[in-house]
Amino acid sequence: MSPAPVRVGIVGLGRLGRRHAENLARRVPGAALVAACSPVEEELRWAGSQLGIAHCFRDYAELLRHPGLDAVFLVTPTTLHAAQIIDALNAGKHVFCEKPLSLEIADCERVEGVAAAQPHLKVMIGFVRRFDASYREAHARIAQGAIGTPFLVRAQTCDRLDPTGAFVEFAASSGGIFLDCSVHDIDLARWLLGAPPARRVYAVGTNAVYQRLAEFDDVDNGLAICEFEGGKLACFYASRTMGHGHDTWTEIAGTAGRLTIGRDTQANQVQLADERGVHFQVVQDFYARFADAFVAEANAFIAAVRGEQAVPLTLADATEATRIGHALARAQRERRMVELR
Amino acid sequence: MSPAPVRVGIVGLGRLGRRHAENLARRVPGAALVAACSPVEEELRWAGSQLGIAHCFRDYAELLRHPGLDAVFLVTPTTLHAAQIIDALNAGKHVFCEKPLSLEIADCERVEGVAAAQPHLKVMIGFVRRFDASYREAHARIAQGAIGTPFLVRAQTCDRLDPTGAFVEFAASSGGIFLDCSVHDIDLARWLLGAPPARRVYAVGTNAVYQRLAEFDDVDNGLAICEFEGGKLACFYASRTMGHGHDTWTEIAGTAGRLTIGRDTQANQVQLADERGVHFQVVQDFYARFADAFVAEANAFIAAVRGEQAVPLTLADATEATRIGHALARAQRERRMVELR
Amino acid sequence: MSPAPVRVGIVGLGRLGRRHAENLARRVPGAALVAACSPVEEELRWAGSQLGIAHCFRDYAELLRHPGLDAVFLVTPTTLHAAQIIDALNAGKHVFCEKPLSLEIADCERVEGVAAAQPHLKVMIGFVRRFDASYREAHARIAQGAIGTPFLVRAQTCDRLDPTGAFVEFAASSGGIFLDCSVHDIDLARWLLGAPPARRVYAVGTNAVYQRLAEFDDVDNGLAICEFEGGKLACFYASRTMGHGHDTWTEIAGTAGRLTIGRDTQANQVQLADERGVHFQVVQDFYARFADAFVAEANAFIAAVRGEQAVPLTLADATEATRIGHALARAQRERRMVELR
Amino acid sequence: MSPAPVRVGIVGLGRLGRRHAENLARRVPGAALVAACSPVEEELRWAGSQLGIAHCFRDYAELLRHPGLDAVFLVTPTTLHAAQIIDALNAGKHVFCEKPLSLEIADCERVEGVAAAQPHLKVMIGFVRRFDASYREAHARIAQGAIGTPFLVRAQTCDRLDPTGAFVEFAASSGGIFLDCSVHDIDLARWLLGAPPARRVYAVGTNAVYQRLAEFDDVDNGLAICEFEGGKLACFYASRTMGHGHDTWTEIAGTAGRLTIGRDTQANQVQLADERGVHFQVVQDFYARFADAFVAEANAFIAAVRGEQAVPLTLADATEATRIGHALARAQRERRMVELR
Repeated sequence: MSPAPVRVGIVGLGRLGRRHAENLARRVPGAALVAACSPVEEELRWAGSQLGIAHCFRDYAELLRHPGLDAVFLVTPTTLHAAQIIDALNAGKHVFCEKPLSLEIADCERVEGVAAAQPHLKVMIGFVRRFDASYREAHARIAQGAIGTPFLVRAQTCDRLDPTGAFVEFAASSGGIFLDCSVHDIDLARWLLGAPPARRVYAVGTNAVYQRLAEFDDVDNGLAICEFEGGKLACFYASRTMGHGHDTWTEIAGTAGRLTIGRDTQANQVQLADERGVHFQVVQDFYARFADAFVAEANAFIAAVRGEQAVPLTLADATEATRIGHALARAQRERRMVELR
Repeated sequence: MSPAPVRVGIVGLGRLGRRHAENLARRVPGAALVAACSPVEEELRWAGSQLGIAHCFRDYAELLRHPGLDAVFLVTPTTLHAAQIIDALNAGKHVFCEKPLSLEIADCERVEGVAAAQPHLKVMIGFVRRFDASYREAHARIAQGAIGTPFLVRAQTCDRLDPTGAFVEFAASSGGIFLDCSVHDIDLARWLLGAPPARRVYAVGTNAVYQRLAEFDDVDNGLAICEFEGGKLACFYASRTMGHGHDTWTEIAGTAGRLTIGRDTQANQVQLADERGVHFQVVQDFYARFADAFVAEANAFIAAVRGEQAVPLTLADATEATRIGHALARAQRERRMVELR
Repeated sequence: MSPAPVRVGIVGLGRLGRRHAENLARRVPGAALVAACSPVEEELRWAGSQLGIAHCFRDYAELLRHPGLDAVFLVTPTTLHAAQIIDALNAGKHVFCEKPLSLEIADCERVEGVAAAQPHLKVMIGFVRRFDASYREAHARIAQGAIGTPFLVRAQTCDRLDPTGAFVEFAASSGGIFLDCSVHDIDLARWLLGAPPARRVYAVGTNAVYQRLAEFDDVDNGLAICEFEGGKLACFYASRTMGHGHDTWTEIAGTAGRLTIGRDTQANQVQLADERGVHFQVVQDFYARFADAFVAEANAFIAAVRGEQAVPLTLADATEATRIGHALARAQRERRMVELR
Repeated sequence: MSPAPVRVGIVGLGRLGRRHAENLARRVPGAALVAACSPVEEELRWAGSQLGIAHCFRDYAELLRHPGLDAVFLVTPTTLHAAQIIDALNAGKHVFCEKPLSLEIADCERVEGVAAAQPHLKVMIGFVRRFDASYREAHARIAQGAIGTPFLVRAQTCDRLDPTGAFVEFAASSGGIFLDCSVHDIDLARWLLGAPPARRVYAVGTNAVYQRLAEFDDVDNGLAICEFEGGKLACFYASRTMGHGHDTWTEIAGTAGRLTIGRDTQANQVQLADERGVHFQVVQDFYARFADAFVAEANAFIAAVRGEQAVPLTLADATEATRIGHALARAQRERRMVELR
């Protein structure tokens, strides 16, 4: 009765890639995870033994040539996204790609162009929060008028401090904290405010812990303001140095109320009261917070490929997030307000 | 324009007595604290120097003879309450007395009788929670139908564990944990449920920390159930051994909702998030929780003396709390259900 | 590399049965759901089309005769549990059975006997909360001494009021509120307190909404106290009439602190602030609260069958929960304290 | 034994003035409120009848000539502050003045000069949050190292939406939202971060509800970033349009943790759960949030006058708050980053 499952190849089996792979294998009924691609032999072995994936490739071009493939999931370094998406589209595959689309606006626009030429192929960038049940609930309530007219979004993406500082080695290629972390918040703000055009931004940053980031013109804590057309405002905060956990939450103010999403998300339902007070744990990393959203995201993409619903966010949305993220990074580095458009 | 202040004498200047005295001196505009009585010389000196009280007495009878006195505030050992109230009434004074009225039902009834004979004199027992803003709000909302028909009260009075165990020396005269602590909850349950007659009770207890209490047939943790007429229920919990603070709160279930009062009352508005999680302090003792209620209580009594409002709770209420508390203590000691009336 | 999956037959495909079936089919890697049994044709069709189950039976005996079956999952009416478990054991199958084991202690003991005779077959009763991440965390912290010596458990299982009152028709066979709802709390209390023997119980109840329950000697709200050996105490509350949602939570007091599990479990991470105040939704039914625990429970049972871990709770645990539940029901109906043993 | 009380004259008996007067009369033991000054006859009558103030003046100069006066409390329009402080100092009086010191930096500096010439006279500007128990606790914990090195303050002052829009008529003289509301947050940020010099600011605003504010170059919602020396950052949010209450809170991030002060301060300890969810009320105006802080502030000032402690915040602090507030207002109006110094 159901249509045939969408045959998917996963590309990239790092930490997040493996999680996407597990979701596709077990929790996305409409998908069949039939192929995997990674330059790391051990990761491919894992895919074979743990997920029973029959077709494993070290070369991306080879995977694309695999005949029984409808779609690819790209969980690869950002610098590869644009070329890999274009190659997949040219090979006639639907594409899901982790955020951000690209760090270069020109690349974003090139992808948009190729995609526009093949409208039957679905392309979706993984802004996972749009698929989180709580953000969806918030979005729906705003549409119902729960807070009147929304005019201000404050959003933050703050990672727990990693004492090893391992992430610093990615600083050269991450595009900086605003493109790496705040890009989620930028996308959320646009989504929650009804996608008004951005007009001007300002940003500052500091290195509270990881002084070495200065070598890359990057910061471990960034603060930004974005003005949109029509008097809509957003404020973003991103950090790599939270002492207590993954501290990602959002607040939307409207003329009649306020919605808060994800403030102090508890790691579990346990609260301890002892001589030091009352305490509870919060989630420690983004996956703990958004595990179910990744499943919902994959299901949404597969549903779009099957034609059961539209792709929930466009490439233009992804390009715009990069554009604003870029402007933030420039504002911070050049210590000035930056106008968009 | 305002009527003359009510001239009050405070009797008992222990820890709680001094607080009542300070409130009367500073935060009860309708009262003038003109006299004090204590067997402890140093306490009287404090009353003179800190509160400027002119008339200090070591003897209660002498205080009652002081001509310029309208009312007394009794903050004395429970065993003295009944006799002191009766003496005050016979001396023509209005009486405020700390809870409980007495540990003996016969004494309660004797006081009721004397008071009934002099209806122009106001007598009020200090069930302070009835004057707490939050309990009042809850009571008002129930009256407005916020939870439908209330049918179940769960209430607890739990003190922070005192490592010195100093309270154990009062065990002989406290009447046990149910009459000392739960008596507040009994009164609240009756108030919030509309004062239905109590029908039967059951109670258990344990000595989790203070084994010495067993010598007094007392427990450091007690649990009780009380059935009222008409299918109304109450559950009480009292403890001397909380690790985290003063943990006193109440929940009322109704056919359409639930009200919670005072759960995890924060000591202040500070929350700390660090590697151990998110934490906050709760209030550490009953006075931190109910400081404002003591002020409101004193004002309410003074207003009643001035004829501006009725006495908010009757001596019969206080007697009933003792009667139920007694039954609880008996049920726990005799390991059986106890019928009332 | 992995051992062959455990071949499971699901028995009963009502609301909860279907959820167990979906979990077994998709989220229990070690299991293969190969057969299903239900007297309802439509449920079997669902199992075939949605889960791709090949072998569907209307008759339980036939399912047991199916050659390629290692284990059964019984999600059937409680009155059938004992006989079905015994039949499965006699057919050489491992058994998972929904709680409670049985309403009759004699039946419980009969199952224990048959199981003891075939120690190579695993039998587990589904006290799902033992598999909930938060309860596990609480149990682990107690073992680590986080609250000193635990001495009091207060636990409640309270369902949202169902305006249709549909559950009333099950009252005749449910065993009453204490065996139907509190049995979870009884098991939790024993688990969290270290399984001390129960000594005496008392219970009361009221019909706040569903007066018709009186016909079945049942109540829609029940309150109970249980004393265990060694001064350990428990207090249970069960309700069918919550206005706001599924209100199931637990609190354990120890000599050095308190653990709270599941109080006001939010339905999502959204909080709305508007002119009526700050508000959030709580979970609406037990499955919303314990969905992940059902998955963990199934995985734990399969791991036990595979010999990777012991069965986490014994039949004796299940029998004891029924024994205490029975005593509570009797105490409530006969208005007296009931001694155990 | 105690020194003679400080004889105080209150100047300005509007809403906040009356509250200061009541505090001075009743809850500041070291003060004697002996005089009052207001141009409004009715307010003076209130001071006489309710507080028993003997000496009432319509003219400020006359009050200053009153012989038995040690100090004045100025609760007057901001435009009068500088001149009134200087007059009081010249009359030999200690001065408490509501915030802000002045909207003009030149005036601030003039006051500083006059005060410096008379170091025996105490002058304090009422940044009330420094006296709030929770902010004090937070400040103390930072000093103890609870969050490592603090580097970021986010603070907001958001008033409940007033449907009458009455405040708009004060827009012409308020100095705009940043000087009127954020000035508190500016002072807090400086205090909590250790008073680093401010280097540059940026600010934006919008009129979400009160379009008429545009006539005054003012906004009803403002958002600002301030960079201090040494990589310290602050983010301010001010609003006149909250739907749910007075929403004023602060968060300080450090290298080892985070402190939150005053988030969702409950109006009372009541929580209601019903079919719409779980809800609680938050405080509705700044006085409900900071009532006790106003008392503590007055006591601190009186203690400083008596020489018992230093003045807790200097005129230079107040000047700096105005300077930064000014820069924010300019940044918002001129749509540019503004450098300080």
